[in-house]
Amino acid sequence: MTTHGRALLADGPRVVNVGLEGFAEDLDAHGVPVTHVGWRPPAGGDVVMARRLAALDADITIAAANEAVLARLTGGHPVLVDCRPAREAMDLEDRVVLHAGPPLAWERACPTMQAAVLCAIRYEGWAADDAGARRLVEQGGVRLAPCHSRGAVGPMTGLISRSMPVFVVENRAGDNRAFATINEGLGAVLRFGANDARVIRRLQWLAEEAGPLLGAALRAGDGVDLRALMSQALRMGDEMHQRNTAASALLTRLLMPAVARATAEAAAIARLAEFIAGNDQFFLNLAMAAGKAITDPCVGAGPSTLPSTLVVTMARNGTDFGIRVAGLGDRWLTAPVNVPDGLYFAGFGPADANPDIGDSAIVETIGLGGASMAASPAVAGFVGAGGLREALALTEEMAEISAGEHPHFRIPTRDDRGAPVGIDIRRVVETGITPLINTGIAGRQPGVGQIGAGTVRAPLACFEQALIAMAEARGVAG
Amino acid sequence: MTTHGRALLADGPRVVNVGLEGFAEDLDAHGVPVTHVGWRPPAGGDVVMARRLAALDADITIAAANEAVLARLTGGHPVLVDCRPAREAMDLEDRVVLHAGPPLAWERACPTMQAAVLCAIRYEGWAADDAGARRLVEQGGVRLAPCHSRGAVGPMTGLISRSMPVFVVENRAGDNRAFATINEGLGAVLRFGANDARVIRRLQWLAEEAGPLLGAALRAGDGVDLRALMSQALRMGDEMHQRNTAASALLTRLLMPAVARATAEAAAIARLAEFIAGNDQFFLNLAMAAGKAITDPCVGAGPSTLPSTLVVTMARNGTDFGIRVAGLGDRWLTAPVNVPDGLYFAGFGPADANPDIGDSAIVETIGLGGASMAASPAVAGFVGAGGLREALALTEEMAEISAGEHPHFRIPTRDDRGAPVGIDIRRVVETGITPLINTGIAGRQPGVGQIGAGTVRAPLACFEQALIAMAEARGVAG
Repeated sequence: MTTHGRALLADGPRVVNVGLEGFAEDLDAHGVPVTHVGWRPPAGGDVVMARRLAALDADITIAAANEAVLARLTGGHPVLVDCRPAREAMDLEDRVVLHAGPPLAWERACPTMQAAVLCAIRYEGWAADDAGARRLVEQGGVRLAPCHSRGAVGPMTGLISRSMPVFVVENRAGDNRAFATINEGLGAVLRFGANDARVIRRLQWLAEEAGPLLGAALRAGDGVDLRALMSQALRMGDEMHQRNTAASALLTRLLMPAVARATAEAAAIARLAEFIAGNDQFFLNLAMAAGKAITDPCVGAGPSTLPSTLVVTMARNGTDFGIRVAGLGDRWLTAPVNVPDGLYFAGFGPADANPDIGDSAIVETIGLGGASMAASPAVAGFVGAGGLREALALTEEMAEISAGEHPHFRIPTRDDRGAPVGIDIRRVVETGITPLINTGIAGRQPGVGQIGAGTVRAPLACFEQALIAMAEARGVAG
Repeated sequence: MTTHGRALLADGPRVVNVGLEGFAEDLDAHGVPVTHVGWRPPAGGDVVMARRLAALDADITIAAANEAVLARLTGGHPVLVDCRPAREAMDLEDRVVLHAGPPLAWERACPTMQAAVLCAIRYEGWAADDAGARRLVEQGGVRLAPCHSRGAVGPMTGLISRSMPVFVVENRAGDNRAFATINEGLGAVLRFGANDARVIRRLQWLAEEAGPLLGAALRAGDGVDLRALMSQALRMGDEMHQRNTAASALLTRLLMPAVARATAEAAAIARLAEFIAGNDQFFLNLAMAAGKAITDPCVGAGPSTLPSTLVVTMARNGTDFGIRVAGLGDRWLTAPVNVPDGLYFAGFGPADANPDIGDSAIVETIGLGGASMAASPAVAGFVGAGGLREALALTEEMAEISAGEHPHFRIPTRDDRGAPVGIDIRRVVETGITPLINTGIAGRQPGVGQIGAGTVRAPLACFEQALIAMAEARGVAG
């Protein structure tokens, strides 16, 4: 008999509980097997919101727009083509520091973000010390802007300034490019708000040796097809947010021949090879840049905006969580960020955690990360009981708020069905299910670095605001 | 409701059919869902064999011996420590060619094996052409011996001669070492019986540049923990017989820094990096050497032989399939090889296939390959319908003939249960289930190379012979 057959006969019938979870808990406590069906009234019983929802659901223009946006989301074709200083690759000007998440006023930035900004200013030589750097920011001598506003994305604090080398990812299904820095590795790094001399020395080495070598290697070839590589890594246990081991190793194997051909200095090859080999998350920034390259053409602008309810950006700056919706153009819908749940490194706990931060949730908007938990049971181990069944259930939950399945990002444990993709604000508001984001946890104290990893939910309020804005835009009465 | 809950309710009850498959097929044809239980009488109804089986099953000395051998099988700790010419690493003498599988007389060797042997002789410079090489073998001027008899293993034809560099794998749980050549890559290669000038040029480059560079890199470090790497790769979709993509990429990432530090010549690094990057099966030979390092201490010798019924070697020479059993020492039990079933490259079909060949089935004796199909749904696609369910069922089938589960090689889709390991000849004879082996398919014509990939079953006759031999050794009446 097959295992499946055995399980079917052995498991026997179960009690199915619909609605209030209390009943299920009660049965469960008495050892009765019970399947709880988490039914809730649409929009949590909010009658006005339910009316907006019904109107937007009946809007066939939205249905058509969503289809078009979903096609762009799933048809994007990111290819890694170059690595150059941000001043060249993205024309990033002097005295500008880009950060993760939605727009952020300096005085509202968390200490980890502030420390990283001051460090970037010292790294650029715009100030000699933190006090001088702080004066510059406070007096407007250095401006802050979201990475997202310049075609870029950054993990955690997400800082980019003009001397930093950035990877260049081309969307071959469009005519746009996206950018992300080289992942700095583990330990004390700028993205987690570390800000000492070691951090700056590493940034200098990245700019002077690693970046130019990677750039030369990439320019010598036809580009690295990130869509193909990511599809493969998804089949190898990466969800490409918290786990990038396969993607990083595959990319290393692919790049090393060209890197070794790009210089005569064997020691430089060794340093770069060692740096990349020491970081299982090396690929994260590239998955993010791929996500940015794919999603940017979905963001509406001006009269060409499609009235789509699909989410095309999710990002956090350590203070606010922000989303952008295809049909609402560049407008950010924000709410206070949550603090991640997860496992902490020895000596740390929830009280030490920085609120959720980073542009990395871009990968969840293209069907990876939390949406692809089923591809990565190892990552599911960071939450709850872990294991394949829980991982599959989390992906199924994300499918309930998603418009489709990804034709390229397929999950072996789902018998090769695609990852759920295209988060629809209507389904989020209807079900109350918010996107699940796999994330690293930064220390609340600047300079501490990463203290754990886990998951976090996007705040429902962003999606409710977006729904109200869409209803207004579509002329639906409030 | 969870997906599982839904499936349970939706599937409803099924007909369970025990024994004759005909009934099940009949119901199935009428659209009635049916689970067929493949019950067969023990030992296929052979009364004498069933009596032997019962006696060996009741033998508590065997039970204790199997426990001890299983502990060695699962406790082996292979570490990659060096790469050196076979003459140095394994004291391989002049005028000896090692081949895959059980001992093989020249005249019984298949044309692919013969072509490879002649090519190895030319490569060593012992003869100028095939005619001269053939005379040497026929007149005893060159001797053939199984790789297995010299602590080595080789894929497909499996040839090793003294100038070829071999990886050195140390078993840190014992005091033994095992050896395997560097995988030559795809296309026209010696292991598939290709034998032209390109084959010899590649072998020369391996001996003159790649091998010494890999050796220097390995000697500079503390060794590569293959058990850890293989455990990780198993979680990344490799079963390490037909698929070694993750293991190869992880190893590359790990080795490249040391390789780049081992030479000042950047071009040599580039050539080696490119060679390794071009071969998803680069790791296969190392998985095999790891298997050899683990299993060799399980093979009994002299009075210290434990009367264990566990299989410690499976190997094919293109003519015979041979197994060795822990309790039978160095004795080979052989039967004619089967021809693999599988998918063929364009332009090839079953008529072009060489019978099953190679020492690579060593990985199936340590729980990988066919036994770990559940870890690698992509490989399951080479047989039948593929998909996760079929992959899981194949691993469950192997569990029926295995003595235990591997404590290090764990499979995420089995909720981290270990791979089935320790094939017991008693269970094979009892159930008629023979070990499933994932394999490449060589062309029958020498020089053609690989023409496909698929699976093959070990012939039952080997296990029946082994059971008879064990019964004799334990004084059980025939």
